[in-house]
Amino acid sequence: MEQLLLVKIGGNVVEDEQLLRRFITSFAQLEGKKILIHGGGKMASKLAQDLGITPKMVEGRRITDEETLKIVTMVYAGLANKKIVSLLQAEGCDAIGLSGADANTIQTIKRPVRIIDYGFAGDITPTSVNGKRIHSLLQLGLCPIFSAITHNGEGQLLNTNADTIASALAIGLSAFYDTSLIYCFEKKGVLAHVEDENSVISTINLHSYQQLKEDRIIADGMIPKLDNAFDAIAKGVKQVIIKHADDLQIPTAGTVIME
Amino acid sequence: MEQLLLVKIGGNVVEDEQLLRRFITSFAQLEGKKILIHGGGKMASKLAQDLGITPKMVEGRRITDEETLKIVTMVYAGLANKKIVSLLQAEGCDAIGLSGADANTIQTIKRPVRIIDYGFAGDITPTSVNGKRIHSLLQLGLCPIFSAITHNGEGQLLNTNADTIASALAIGLSAFYDTSLIYCFEKKGVLAHVEDENSVISTINLHSYQQLKEDRIIADGMIPKLDNAFDAIAKGVKQVIIKHADDLQIPTAGTVIME
Repeated sequence: MEQLLLVKIGGNVVEDEQLLRRFITSFAQLEGKKILIHGGGKMASKLAQDLGITPKMVEGRRITDEETLKIVTMVYAGLANKKIVSLLQAEGCDAIGLSGADANTIQTIKRPVRIIDYGFAGDITPTSVNGKRIHSLLQLGLCPIFSAITHNGEGQLLNTNADTIASALAIGLSAFYDTSLIYCFEKKGVLAHVEDENSVISTINLHSYQQLKEDRIIADGMIPKLDNAFDAIAKGVKQVIIKHADDLQIPTAGTVIME
Repeated sequence: MEQLLLVKIGGNVVEDEQLLRRFITSFAQLEGKKILIHGGGKMASKLAQDLGITPKMVEGRRITDEETLKIVTMVYAGLANKKIVSLLQAEGCDAIGLSGADANTIQTIKRPVRIIDYGFAGDITPTSVNGKRIHSLLQLGLCPIFSAITHNGEGQLLNTNADTIASALAIGLSAFYDTSLIYCFEKKGVLAHVEDENSVISTINLHSYQQLKEDRIIADGMIPKLDNAFDAIAKGVKQVIIKHADDLQIPTAGTVIME
């Protein structure tokens, strides 16, 4: 099967003008079929703040109320997405910005209310990714750039975790391509010592992952990222790598996730 | 040649929740290949106001400075575009939201500074519309939904008049389709008496247009709209109609523009 590379960049990369531009140049140069997925978290928080809207948090997690949904739609699908697309176009990459609503590429379900009502949060299901449609866009020579906004197919936009979208896309497209997934962020990989940038753990498998969690070397925000990575590997994605955005073109850089 | 219908809706339609929903249902039901172009003016002004940004006007025209460009990108390409796309998807129309940067569909030039510097305003040129690319998306069965944001191909997003985009698309795609263009707004057509909703002028040709302008029956915002309409007719568009958004499916409604 043909290769497909999926790259996810976090909000910290999108917001760092210099890092973003270096990344864009590097991404545009990658050969073959590719997809970019981006966050944009802090830009949204900044806009909310400027509008005098206080983020609603319950047990440390953000609630997407109606106002927040408007903000993330504006920032992720508008400002961040179109900026990235226009910069990629300038580098000769035929980028097309998409939310999950566009061409019905990613349909999610509004997270059911159990103890907490997360508001307009969209959860990925096994049938969320419209692989056939995304394949048809790739076949046209286009490079899809996904923001973390999806829809429920009934006219409701939903806020969805960008890491989860990235792994769902890699899984969903593995029926059409040999998919590899790279999570790019502002660190050199999964670090053995948070304060030491050069303590990159070169490979993590399911066994060592359990140990690293027990030892609290892997904690907080890295856990859902790695859970997504292992989920992707288990469901047919060939390779998952976590690395610095500046190291996109260095094959040996970062942390490789293996079963 | 196959038919292609291009429909433009103004900001007043986008912002009127009930009118928008009626329009969306009506538009989704139209058979054959179609494209929607939308404005979103007042939503952008509202956001600017909420952020404490005063619109910069010179001689009655809005200047797109850097802050304003961010706002229109968020509102047009983000909030308004994704809302329309998700509502159309719910009605079974396979909509895909696009700015001119997406898939390089519309490349404009930054308006040259003569007496006034309009800032990040993008002007359409005869080669702006990437008809071949838009044709390829239509061939996939997709319905492109254009916001009024374009790019210059060098990484700069630009704010472009939605009426002008609509006529440029109709002209650019007339090499591939028999194109018809409908401008939908919140009036029943071009009115002979502004205060009388039922005084719709059923047809206007170049000759009667001159007379209507001399008699000041047509003035202000209607002039650029009609100039765009006549330009489209002169450059190969088969038909241009100006009508109420509620009358989309009534063939005899509105004002027909003829050479």
